[in-house]
Amino acid sequence: MKYDLEKDNLIDICKKGSMQDLHDLSADIRSFLVDKVSKTGGHIASNLGIVELSIALMRVFDTPKDKIIYDVGHQTYVHKILTGRADKFDTLRQYNGLSGFPKSRESVYDAYDTGHSSTSLSAAYGMAVARDLSGDDYNIVAVIGDGSVTGGIVYEALNNIGSNQTNINIILNDNGMSIARNVGAMSKYLNKLRSSEKYDQAKVNVKSALGNLPVVGNPLKSGLKYTKERFKYSVLGNEGHLIEDLGIKYFGPVDGYDIKEMTEILHAASKYDGPTMIHVTTQKGKGYGPAEKYPRKFHGISPFDPKTGEIINKSTSSSYSKVFGDTLCEIADEDDRIVAITAAMGTATGLGPFYERHTDRFFDVGIAEEHAVTFAAGLAKSGYKPVVAIYSSFLQRAYDYIIEDVALQDLHVIFAIDRAGLVGADGETHHGQFDLSYMSMVPGMTVLTPADGNQLAEMLKFAVDMEGPVAIRYPRGSSEGNHLRLRKFKGGNNVISEGRDVTILAVGAMLDEAIKAAEILKDKGVSAGITNVAVVKPLDTAWYNIKSELVVTLEDNVLRGGFGEAFSAEHVNSDFDIINIGINDKFVNHGTIEQLRKECGIDAASVAERIIEHLEREA
Amino acid sequence: MKYDLEKDNLIDICKKGSMQDLHDLSADIRSFLVDKVSKTGGHIASNLGIVELSIALMRVFDTPKDKIIYDVGHQTYVHKILTGRADKFDTLRQYNGLSGFPKSRESVYDAYDTGHSSTSLSAAYGMAVARDLSGDDYNIVAVIGDGSVTGGIVYEALNNIGSNQTNINIILNDNGMSIARNVGAMSKYLNKLRSSEKYDQAKVNVKSALGNLPVVGNPLKSGLKYTKERFKYSVLGNEGHLIEDLGIKYFGPVDGYDIKEMTEILHAASKYDGPTMIHVTTQKGKGYGPAEKYPRKFHGISPFDPKTGEIINKSTSSSYSKVFGDTLCEIADEDDRIVAITAAMGTATGLGPFYERHTDRFFDVGIAEEHAVTFAAGLAKSGYKPVVAIYSSFLQRAYDYIIEDVALQDLHVIFAIDRAGLVGADGETHHGQFDLSYMSMVPGMTVLTPADGNQLAEMLKFAVDMEGPVAIRYPRGSSEGNHLRLRKFKGGNNVISEGRDVTILAVGAMLDEAIKAAEILKDKGVSAGITNVAVVKPLDTAWYNIKSELVVTLEDNVLRGGFGEAFSAEHVNSDFDIINIGINDKFVNHGTIEQLRKECGIDAASVAERIIEHLEREA
Repeated sequence: MKYDLEKDNLIDICKKGSMQDLHDLSADIRSFLVDKVSKTGGHIASNLGIVELSIALMRVFDTPKDKIIYDVGHQTYVHKILTGRADKFDTLRQYNGLSGFPKSRESVYDAYDTGHSSTSLSAAYGMAVARDLSGDDYNIVAVIGDGSVTGGIVYEALNNIGSNQTNINIILNDNGMSIARNVGAMSKYLNKLRSSEKYDQAKVNVKSALGNLPVVGNPLKSGLKYTKERFKYSVLGNEGHLIEDLGIKYFGPVDGYDIKEMTEILHAASKYDGPTMIHVTTQKGKGYGPAEKYPRKFHGISPFDPKTGEIINKSTSSSYSKVFGDTLCEIADEDDRIVAITAAMGTATGLGPFYERHTDRFFDVGIAEEHAVTFAAGLAKSGYKPVVAIYSSFLQRAYDYIIEDVALQDLHVIFAIDRAGLVGADGETHHGQFDLSYMSMVPGMTVLTPADGNQLAEMLKFAVDMEGPVAIRYPRGSSEGNHLRLRKFKGGNNVISEGRDVTILAVGAMLDEAIKAAEILKDKGVSAGITNVAVVKPLDTAWYNIKSELVVTLEDNVLRGGFGEAFSAEHVNSDFDIINIGINDKFVNHGTIEQLRKECGIDAASVAERIIEHLEREA
Repeated sequence: MKYDLEKDNLIDICKKGSMQDLHDLSADIRSFLVDKVSKTGGHIASNLGIVELSIALMRVFDTPKDKIIYDVGHQTYVHKILTGRADKFDTLRQYNGLSGFPKSRESVYDAYDTGHSSTSLSAAYGMAVARDLSGDDYNIVAVIGDGSVTGGIVYEALNNIGSNQTNINIILNDNGMSIARNVGAMSKYLNKLRSSEKYDQAKVNVKSALGNLPVVGNPLKSGLKYTKERFKYSVLGNEGHLIEDLGIKYFGPVDGYDIKEMTEILHAASKYDGPTMIHVTTQKGKGYGPAEKYPRKFHGISPFDPKTGEIINKSTSSSYSKVFGDTLCEIADEDDRIVAITAAMGTATGLGPFYERHTDRFFDVGIAEEHAVTFAAGLAKSGYKPVVAIYSSFLQRAYDYIIEDVALQDLHVIFAIDRAGLVGADGETHHGQFDLSYMSMVPGMTVLTPADGNQLAEMLKFAVDMEGPVAIRYPRGSSEGNHLRLRKFKGGNNVISEGRDVTILAVGAMLDEAIKAAEILKDKGVSAGITNVAVVKPLDTAWYNIKSELVVTLEDNVLRGGFGEAFSAEHVNSDFDIINIGINDKFVNHGTIEQLRKECGIDAASVAERIIEHLEREA
């Protein structure tokens, strides 16, 4: 290693170093990333891809005065290293450790917090308008991947930015791939640009760009004069007309590993009067063999052997996602009306086998959750049975479309809501802590919550034969529970055990915490019964069989609008006391699910404690 | 009138009539529309604009086998007349009467229900995929206005449609104006196309289009041969490249009042193998002087004098929207950090005066609610105080962005949620019946609900000086209440009166129903107290001052996740009984607000009845 990444002033090196220095720095950062992330896990492929781009941005822009907004945010590891956080990488994505996403509270260099895709241009536009209203003068840069540009909000922002001619530099980080393989017409269009011959002309282009600009700062090339026409048709290329039609100047494509060229083009763009898009071509996993070869596997990865790229302690248990995907595959064998839809989460939601076996009925619409849901509504309206598999926190984007397109027409669309509840290391932007609330309030929606993989499979089969909209929400991770007493799902809840002192109504997979809580309570002489709430909506009160004077509801969802409140409202005039345990009115950080449940007070020990406190107070 | 619109088979006339017949039919429909809508009120300008287009669609396409999806849906009056519903126009938008939007339950010719903008392409894509999977062969047509194409989901759909080359005919109904004046780069781009000279070439274009098509049906022109290049550069025009870059064939622009030409181009497009966009230029209010002159006024209008266009019984009372706009104007005079943002609802939300006085701090982003909210987050992050004025049901689109961009960064964005609760004649797609639920569940969100205009003004001033995200939700219509006992808003609720038998907790503007209910109850010897709930979140239990054994919560929001459930959960172990009155798990039809409140059981009489029933049962 040429540099000490934890101690050297890396911003200074970015600003003043020679090209050789910067390439050496890049190499050091790559080694560091592989070393650190192989231990903690994390999003490595995208970060390896933009080492040089992150350095070039630091070289050209005057941060933190200039603002750099990284779309989606998981590709900010290099940015974090450059801005003095290398020493914290042992704690990456761990409880109380460094976040895997930009956080203003971590550093003044993190200009805007992101986590969900496609928001950077709208945020940049807001910051640019604020700058202009204040009469200030600095640059605002949005770095957005080609996967993120399938999200409709990007287009809404481009429409405003292009129209108002606000000074914003949009860096299109084009690695030809989002989480899954990129889809759609935009992707084809970008491929066309990528493979065009513009890149070879880039050096000429920089010169011509400068020829057209007012001379500010250090003109890289003086004496060269090019007409506006030349500028337009060389630097921007008539290939860039889609972007240009929207009023945004297109620069590129430029090689994302040629720091010198990137620096020149970024500098030119920063001086340009009006919005620009700089198209940078990069490669996921760049410089680390296993990640270059398997970019999808290395998108977000568990700890791995840096030598081989093999995952350490690979889980052998079956995940909810796998159960979902395998079961849907089977159902689709029998029912040719089943169609699977996802939004750039095909493999991650377990739909790989479905894609293999029922390719013509599999649709990955790209990062476009709204469209995914309304597309499903169109299919259901024509008699098909679409199953929409989207993570809980991302499905929030389709809230209006779930109401207006699906529920209002009472269409039989099944929502397979993966990553519900607390998700762990991805943290606050990714927890599925709202779904019970936002789905339950939708008229006519059925909301189901399996306690393990078996129940998920049963529910999915059951849901296919229902009518109207149905949501099944389940957590990430292992679906293996020890729930011998769960009866086959036939649309009701399950009394697991009866208790003298307290009855715990455990929603879905919170059953495990309830079982542990009951064991703790048993040791303290408290008799706790458990009912597994498999059907959150409609509220089926006949199944609870409550004989205790205290009822506790337990869910990994915010309290407001969740199961507990609905249950309490239904039973407000009954003679048992009720305690609702769930996530309070707050966002939850990153860490292990165990740590986070504890922090939220929804783990077994906290539940037992709340119950004992209450019983002691009442005694 | 040449035709009896209520009795003649208009579809047959569309199919077989001469051009003269169709122009006569258009004239008859225009007279009918002005006559009927002047009595009922409704969306007239957009319908006057597409009389000929609706007829041309009926002529070319074989409905209901072919599916026509009208985006946003308020421009389907002509379609309803043509498909046998002219006799119901006296009941338009009235209780149990004809809906102002397409409804499958009304007619088999309404292929898909719409109400919120920009969904038609996604729905069409779903229906097209269903058709293709089934091996069927029919046309799917989406009719979308230029205002609706600012919504990001349109772009998500185009991305899929263009990529998969599905057969869909997209009719771009370009009247150069959405509800308000159109904004953005796309609008500028369309204007460029509109004013290009392509229209004069349209006749040639149709021929060249056919030259490129496989000969199916009746070829309009045989013998003519044009090369693919010629086709590309004449019919589609190199002006259409934005659309063409996405893989969608562009036809146009074509005059929306030349039925013959539209018929020819639509026919050509319907035979084209792959997705097409037919750009039709129309004019809002066409053929009715006052509506041509004031298209914005006639977008959605109350009953008017058909001779003069003057509104009958013009309300002289001040609306919540007006109070909001005027107050924000005043606040902005003093505080130059206030910025107003809306999504094509500037005038309707009362922001007209703000626009006049603080033009540089007014931003209408077009129909793009997601972007509006994240744009606001960017402004707030830079120290401004954005106030986002969007109707309750449309703000549902920004749910994820409210959570991830605003609340997660604890940004001080004020949401002015107009049209909350039941809105009346627009019906089920437009009621603001979910906002208390979807806003209250957002961590750190403050939710305020004024009972009248005075309180709205006070709350807005109060909210500006708060921290973090704040929502103020208020209904449409008159803001004049008779609430002499409301104290100045200082962040708390208001005990209006105390009652021996029951305490009614009335959320916001439901105070009026509570006051009336208390009067009814008084006549029956029941003493009812009232507290006005001005702060729905955080739940401030100290203010309620409950002395009765029964508490009733009253809100014009769904019960699930609303104020009542939260209150019940908080007070589940207390010694008073609680009844939650709100909207049950259902969508609410159109009608007057009075009729709809009665249907939902949230009007004064129903509230009084529920209370008396309960007291009698308990006695």
